[in-house]
Amino acid sequence: MTRYAIGVDFGTESGRAVLVDVADGRQVATAVSAYSHGVIDERLPIADREVRLGPDWALQDPEDYQRVFEEAVPAVLANAGVDAADVIGVGIDFTACTMLPTTSDGTPLCLLPELRANPHAWVKLWKHHAAQPEADRINQTARAMGQAWLDRYGGRISSEWFFSKALQILDEAPEVYRAADRLIEAADWVVWRLTGGETRNACTAGYKAMWSKRDGFPDRGYFAALDPRLADVIDEKMARDIRPMGERAGGISDEAAAWTGLRPGTAVAIANVDAHVAAPASTVVEPGRMVMIMGTSTCHIILSPGEHAVPGMCGYVEDGVIPGLFGYEAGQSCVGDHFSWFVEHAVPAAYGDEARDRGLDLHALLQEKAARLRVGQSGLLALDWWNGNRSVLVDAELGGLLIGATLATVPEEIYRALIEATAYGTRVIIETFEAHGVPVREIVACGGLPEKSPLIMQIYADVTGRPFRLSASDQTPALGSAMFGAVAAGAAAGGHATIQDAARAMARLKDLVYEPNPQNAAVYDVLYREYTRLHDYFGRGENDVMKTLRRIRADAMRDVPTQEA
Amino acid sequence: MTRYAIGVDFGTESGRAVLVDVADGRQVATAVSAYSHGVIDERLPIADREVRLGPDWALQDPEDYQRVFEEAVPAVLANAGVDAADVIGVGIDFTACTMLPTTSDGTPLCLLPELRANPHAWVKLWKHHAAQPEADRINQTARAMGQAWLDRYGGRISSEWFFSKALQILDEAPEVYRAADRLIEAADWVVWRLTGGETRNACTAGYKAMWSKRDGFPDRGYFAALDPRLADVIDEKMARDIRPMGERAGGISDEAAAWTGLRPGTAVAIANVDAHVAAPASTVVEPGRMVMIMGTSTCHIILSPGEHAVPGMCGYVEDGVIPGLFGYEAGQSCVGDHFSWFVEHAVPAAYGDEARDRGLDLHALLQEKAARLRVGQSGLLALDWWNGNRSVLVDAELGGLLIGATLATVPEEIYRALIEATAYGTRVIIETFEAHGVPVREIVACGGLPEKSPLIMQIYADVTGRPFRLSASDQTPALGSAMFGAVAAGAAAGGHATIQDAARAMARLKDLVYEPNPQNAAVYDVLYREYTRLHDYFGRGENDVMKTLRRIRADAMRDVPTQEA
Repeated sequence: MTRYAIGVDFGTESGRAVLVDVADGRQVATAVSAYSHGVIDERLPIADREVRLGPDWALQDPEDYQRVFEEAVPAVLANAGVDAADVIGVGIDFTACTMLPTTSDGTPLCLLPELRANPHAWVKLWKHHAAQPEADRINQTARAMGQAWLDRYGGRISSEWFFSKALQILDEAPEVYRAADRLIEAADWVVWRLTGGETRNACTAGYKAMWSKRDGFPDRGYFAALDPRLADVIDEKMARDIRPMGERAGGISDEAAAWTGLRPGTAVAIANVDAHVAAPASTVVEPGRMVMIMGTSTCHIILSPGEHAVPGMCGYVEDGVIPGLFGYEAGQSCVGDHFSWFVEHAVPAAYGDEARDRGLDLHALLQEKAARLRVGQSGLLALDWWNGNRSVLVDAELGGLLIGATLATVPEEIYRALIEATAYGTRVIIETFEAHGVPVREIVACGGLPEKSPLIMQIYADVTGRPFRLSASDQTPALGSAMFGAVAAGAAAGGHATIQDAARAMARLKDLVYEPNPQNAAVYDVLYREYTRLHDYFGRGENDVMKTLRRIRADAMRDVPTQEA
Repeated sequence: MTRYAIGVDFGTESGRAVLVDVADGRQVATAVSAYSHGVIDERLPIADREVRLGPDWALQDPEDYQRVFEEAVPAVLANAGVDAADVIGVGIDFTACTMLPTTSDGTPLCLLPELRANPHAWVKLWKHHAAQPEADRINQTARAMGQAWLDRYGGRISSEWFFSKALQILDEAPEVYRAADRLIEAADWVVWRLTGGETRNACTAGYKAMWSKRDGFPDRGYFAALDPRLADVIDEKMARDIRPMGERAGGISDEAAAWTGLRPGTAVAIANVDAHVAAPASTVVEPGRMVMIMGTSTCHIILSPGEHAVPGMCGYVEDGVIPGLFGYEAGQSCVGDHFSWFVEHAVPAAYGDEARDRGLDLHALLQEKAARLRVGQSGLLALDWWNGNRSVLVDAELGGLLIGATLATVPEEIYRALIEATAYGTRVIIETFEAHGVPVREIVACGGLPEKSPLIMQIYADVTGRPFRLSASDQTPALGSAMFGAVAAGAAAGGHATIQDAARAMARLKDLVYEPNPQNAAVYDVLYREYTRLHDYFGRGENDVMKTLRRIRADAMRDVPTQEA
């Protein structure tokens, strides 16, 4: 009898459900639910008042997540014509750190009328970058107090992470902080919605909230040093019971059964993170092969049997990806977003006309033109910091740079330079891993970009000097979540005993391999040297012009009256 | 009885004739003749063969110049309804250094069938930048031999100048060099076309060909050190009889009278340069007020009673602009071209749609949007080196830089950053002049840009901290040429005895003054410090990445096969 699992992947703009055959990983049905409010970065979506957000803010509406369960899960059941009784498990994965404050019963504070107009009551999306002052304080205090956990995060906590965001709430909206009975990852919150019970997963706790299996959270004294009101944040608003990956969080509640059409009691896995869940879904359950989840941004996951302090990566967590191994994470915060920015803001009308005439989208047209350029022909070099730098500099306040433009520079040259810049950024990450004891022999890419762009994959192979393979699934994180759903159900119920078993049965790679072209790689070696020199000059404090420009910009937005010209 | 003079201004894309009343400078008629081949930078405009040009080449067709005389001069006579007998003088001005090889009777070598397919037989336009290796040799040799004249040019000869271009002909096409009886500025060549006699003017000789009134040209030994075949270039292919500004070159020949409709014998002034002739036409005949001629590029002219070695300017020439004073020239090689590049290559379709709907051109739309930004709000900083840097770095191999971009960056922010970058470039020039004994109190701007863009003028005033005024004429160089035509005719013929007399009678400023806004200037002071730091880092040899990128690009264009992706 065929058994199924459902994976639900909550992305930046939408959530998607995939119904998968647990025997072979076959994706039987997929449904997408676009978030009606998407990324909220200009003003709150409320009718009665105009509440504008500051620069670097990025919020979401938790009701958009709820709708994914109400729309996409019933849709895959119906489209597949599968009986809910044959669905043995559900897993979810989420962007992270994406967090929100709730009441004790899990009601998001932004749904309370008295807090609805307060931006801090809403979900802070992973790419909310307005908590940099708090991240700075977290880092300074940790260094001053010699906190050992800092080394696990490459020596630097990001403004994107849990306590930076929590501390920003406390700093800027103490009334919201007081009203929050719970501060919780959205990943755990949606599992709570499904099961009716609050659980906390080791992946987000480990990678985003300074928790480790051996040492737990930082101690009370550290939090008190950040702010006395934060001293008991773990016991008051979070939890010390952190559950390992692959566990069963609970069963579908009667209420959730009603929205989703699933049977009450169906196994629900502990929450996971989109990037991390993609590793086993890309066949990677052992050291040496790095998974790159490439979309608006890129996450890099690599496994190692040992514990290594690698500077500037996002963190490592024991059992954080695969039980028995340390899972290392790095990140690039501007990849697909980078190319989309370019297409939206910097491509002339003639290119749009040509694309339309030929039935191509603009990315396809630009990639076709860019593929005709020889390596180095553009004369351009870029630093891929349009959205700051996550690894290895961990600095959201860095800005983008393009150098070498001439009056003969054409759009496809800039587009290619932006692609190359993200590839150089990947090479910096690989070389940093290798220099600190974590080898990277081969890369497995998954996500929207690798699928659509042979040019990008070839450039990455040429720049990094490593073969690139592709996950066979076009929905790798959702597949991985379904795999964890099958593990939560267990072998006795027709699922799998371990995630390794699930990977062997359900995960595959495409046959295609992008091998480095040695001639191109030689030119890229020269260009990469120039990249790293600029990277270090602007990224490691020798010239802080990017931060100065941000400060001047912030001042201009606050104080200076509009110029009359 | 009313007397008239005609000024003919040869620009980068077209030539224009203006017929002017010599009593008060009133512009009675104007006519433009667009060059049919414009700037030739991809392939030679010949039918029988495909001859492609290398990167950085920029040629022109001398027959396009001839057509300006044949079309625009008769047109102004006809449009004004003026009798040719009442036209007492003609002056011309030209871009410089724009030079060509000819036979002894002035026939351009590119008109000879046997040399027509050789790019070196054509006119090398001012912005032909492919002679950098020759410029490097000229500079190294001059430094090694301790040539004193080098100091007059800020210590560096540009790839745009006469001997860089002449030496490139010799290096790359010795057969063209041998066939050239004359190597001549296009300015002098068109005067030769009018009068039938070859003359050489002090302005181009002084600013572009290392000549000075006191010392003449560099000596034979220096030229021989560059290349033995070049030893006698002055005596073989040029002339030592260099004529001062304001002199009469000759009279209109019978042949030229036939094309132009002017009377044979009408006075023709010694050739002049567009930038330099604009100074008296902008009322500037004394020290302290800098003239900026702003178009595709910008030339800066300032007068001083004394001789000062100012590093990195283009040169100074005694009597080179106004008799009795030293005329100093600086330049920015990418101004209007910069904004045009952006509009052509980097503005999305939505902006084009909005501009069309509102009946604006894209520049006007972008300037309207950019004018709403506060100073510093864009968070961007650019180095205005899309076409290299003329002053004060004298380095055509530098490239453009944009820094500080984010995913929220919009086109008008980049456009404004490019404008601001050119303003910072101007401030570097002003500060360098002042630091070396040439004060700059006020600026008079002329050319197409100042007319059309109050935003640009206000940004320049705010960045430089100096008031900007505008020449009243919308055809300042042509007016200046007409003024010199009136001086060539002389007071007895109804013209003027001196250029100062002509300036008093014929030149005017607009009433409008752009005064610096102190609040904006304060923010720009901070941004300018960041600009100068990047300027020095990338421009003075600490990080030569821009040159490395050019070298890699040149290699890619030559050797490496197209990448298959």
